[in-house]
Amino acid sequence: MGKILVLYYSKSGNTKKMAHLVADGAVEISGIEVRLKAINEADREDVLWCDGLALGSPTHLGTVAYEMKKFWEDKITDWQKLDGKIGCAFSSQGGWGGGGELTCLSLLTILMNFGFLVFGVTDYAGYQFTAHYGTTQAGEPREEKQKEACRRLGKRLAEWIAVCVDGRKELHPLCGNYKRNPWD
Amino acid sequence: MGKILVLYYSKSGNTKKMAHLVADGAVEISGIEVRLKAINEADREDVLWCDGLALGSPTHLGTVAYEMKKFWEDKITDWQKLDGKIGCAFSSQGGWGGGGELTCLSLLTILMNFGFLVFGVTDYAGYQFTAHYGTTQAGEPREEKQKEACRRLGKRLAEWIAVCVDGRKELHPLCGNYKRNPWD
Amino acid sequence: MGKILVLYYSKSGNTKKMAHLVADGAVEISGIEVRLKAINEADREDVLWCDGLALGSPTHLGTVAYEMKKFWEDKITDWQKLDGKIGCAFSSQGGWGGGGELTCLSLLTILMNFGFLVFGVTDYAGYQFTAHYGTTQAGEPREEKQKEACRRLGKRLAEWIAVCVDGRKELHPLCGNYKRNPWD
Amino acid sequence: MGKILVLYYSKSGNTKKMAHLVADGAVEISGIEVRLKAINEADREDVLWCDGLALGSPTHLGTVAYEMKKFWEDKITDWQKLDGKIGCAFSSQGGWGGGGELTCLSLLTILMNFGFLVFGVTDYAGYQFTAHYGTTQAGEPREEKQKEACRRLGKRLAEWIAVCVDGRKELHPLCGNYKRNPWD
Repeated sequence: MGKILVLYYSKSGNTKKMAHLVADGAVEISGIEVRLKAINEADREDVLWCDGLALGSPTHLGTVAYEMKKFWEDKITDWQKLDGKIGCAFSSQGGWGGGGELTCLSLLTILMNFGFLVFGVTDYAGYQFTAHYGTTQAGEPREEKQKEACRRLGKRLAEWIAVCVDGRKELHPLCGNYKRNPWD
Repeated sequence: MGKILVLYYSKSGNTKKMAHLVADGAVEISGIEVRLKAINEADREDVLWCDGLALGSPTHLGTVAYEMKKFWEDKITDWQKLDGKIGCAFSSQGGWGGGGELTCLSLLTILMNFGFLVFGVTDYAGYQFTAHYGTTQAGEPREEKQKEACRRLGKRLAEWIAVCVDGRKELHPLCGNYKRNPWD
Repeated sequence: MGKILVLYYSKSGNTKKMAHLVADGAVEISGIEVRLKAINEADREDVLWCDGLALGSPTHLGTVAYEMKKFWEDKITDWQKLDGKIGCAFSSQGGWGGGGELTCLSLLTILMNFGFLVFGVTDYAGYQFTAHYGTTQAGEPREEKQKEACRRLGKRLAEWIAVCVDGRKELHPLCGNYKRNPWD
Repeated sequence: MGKILVLYYSKSGNTKKMAHLVADGAVEISGIEVRLKAINEADREDVLWCDGLALGSPTHLGTVAYEMKKFWEDKITDWQKLDGKIGCAFSSQGGWGGGGELTCLSLLTILMNFGFLVFGVTDYAGYQFTAHYGTTQAGEPREEKQKEACRRLGKRLAEWIAVCVDGRKELHPLCGNYKRNPWD
């Protein structure tokens, strides 16, 4: 049974709200165990435990918050023990154009550094709203499409874990069990 | 007298609309000459001519449109003749989270490769809307803050040209001649 | 039986040499079919065909060569038909510090845009030589560690395809069937 | 008289060695004041003081060390007081392909976030060795071209400060007072 960790740091509470929605999306896929933890509640065992990881940090100065970076530098010393896990990213930024995508890419870089396979979501969560390299948000998610972009990230992570780890090929998003874009 | 080139490629017309607004912002600073050109109207002489360059491309597959890349690879063979020019970037993407920031960063990378000094805008153009690494847009600019984020990029470029090239230090944005954020 | 495509564009021949080595690494894993193609020999059917893709481009102006970008923009119009494939990147640059890593990251961005899971290699191919975000090279691979960094990328791709697509969990690199670092 | 700060964090001593060489390059331009400080010796006054900043961090997990990020998040709360300063980056990584370029780009992102104009060096410091987006190194600089890539970064920063801040246009690198590439 596949295991997912939604791991986040939040200062203002916005990224925390995103993390809860990402976890909500992950549990939409049955048969996947989901843990939701802030970095101060998590440890290396949580990271070693999971098959899939959704990693969230606020955008501070256009990149990952130092607290999140410190977690990985200090606690995850298990280099070359995490290869082959699957990861994705999310971030709340102060404003659109404020570095949310850059932060997601840096989060994915950290994960790739440990051997993760990383991904984004090709679906549109609503009009002109997607999460191609992770879910980004200005402030907190308020509109339905903003919330759905968080949930869809978690759901996609759960789907990849189901397909790649548990061999449940029927859960591949291309099998077409649900609308992936509003205009479908 | 400082010279600015707003150079863009547009497929759908969205990045073209942004380019016009960027040029509108640049002419707000008196004593700066501004040229607005699509890549099919421009040549190496335009790039050599300018002191400052605002470079715009749609986000295609999360990065610069190949037509724009081709322009630089084919036409700008003047390596180490462009050092010290000042540059910035703008991009229209299909949806928020669709790679607009990544495209701006790749446009800036191209410019840095030729020795440009590149920048973003720390101002907020409106509520939760900025252009820290260039101006990004989903589709076309419609709201006032979206239009202002384009104009502000062009204005800032003109200010840096006035200050660094023409020695008009009184035009430095920190001299406080206008509101830089809506809540000021 | 897993299928791998090594797809490259090469101008000077350096990236082509890397591509051949990447393919050599992929065939080290038995039971995987490997195709090696330059973009002018490949078509959308090749991309649809594969389970795993190693994508190579020279670094031109700090990012992907326009010819490679054009291939994806023009030929791969099958949006949301490629989700869940696995991808990685390689690039030859003019000199160390010349943008090879940035090019790999842009190649991975293009793949993520189509829903690929992307990865780098945590192994060291020799003293102070790795491929954490794809394999990079200055000019052509000459030293053994430079060649091994290419082969290791292809081998790792084949391993992930074996594990995730064919369910051959015993081929997971963490199962420890070979030395992953020179000092092991 | 232009003022330059070389600001670094170093864990193993490698980035510190680079910082000393960057400072050596900066003082090659007469009439520029240069300060060299580790982050634990520096404060916001140093950052406010300088016209130009060379920022160095080791590559940890493919991006900026958390200690360097923390410095900027905790100490530099002077948002929109740093616009128009000029910046560049350098980083020591564990191995080639290990994220040094990505770290430089993240350092430049942090600086752009504060309104800096940022740049790389188009010069080659030796055969197949450049610093297009900042100076990168695997381990410590040992070969002459590796040391020169550090010095050239500092020298170029000093040149831009001389030209843009002090109006000494004769020091523009395009004026051709020295060989910029080994084969010139």
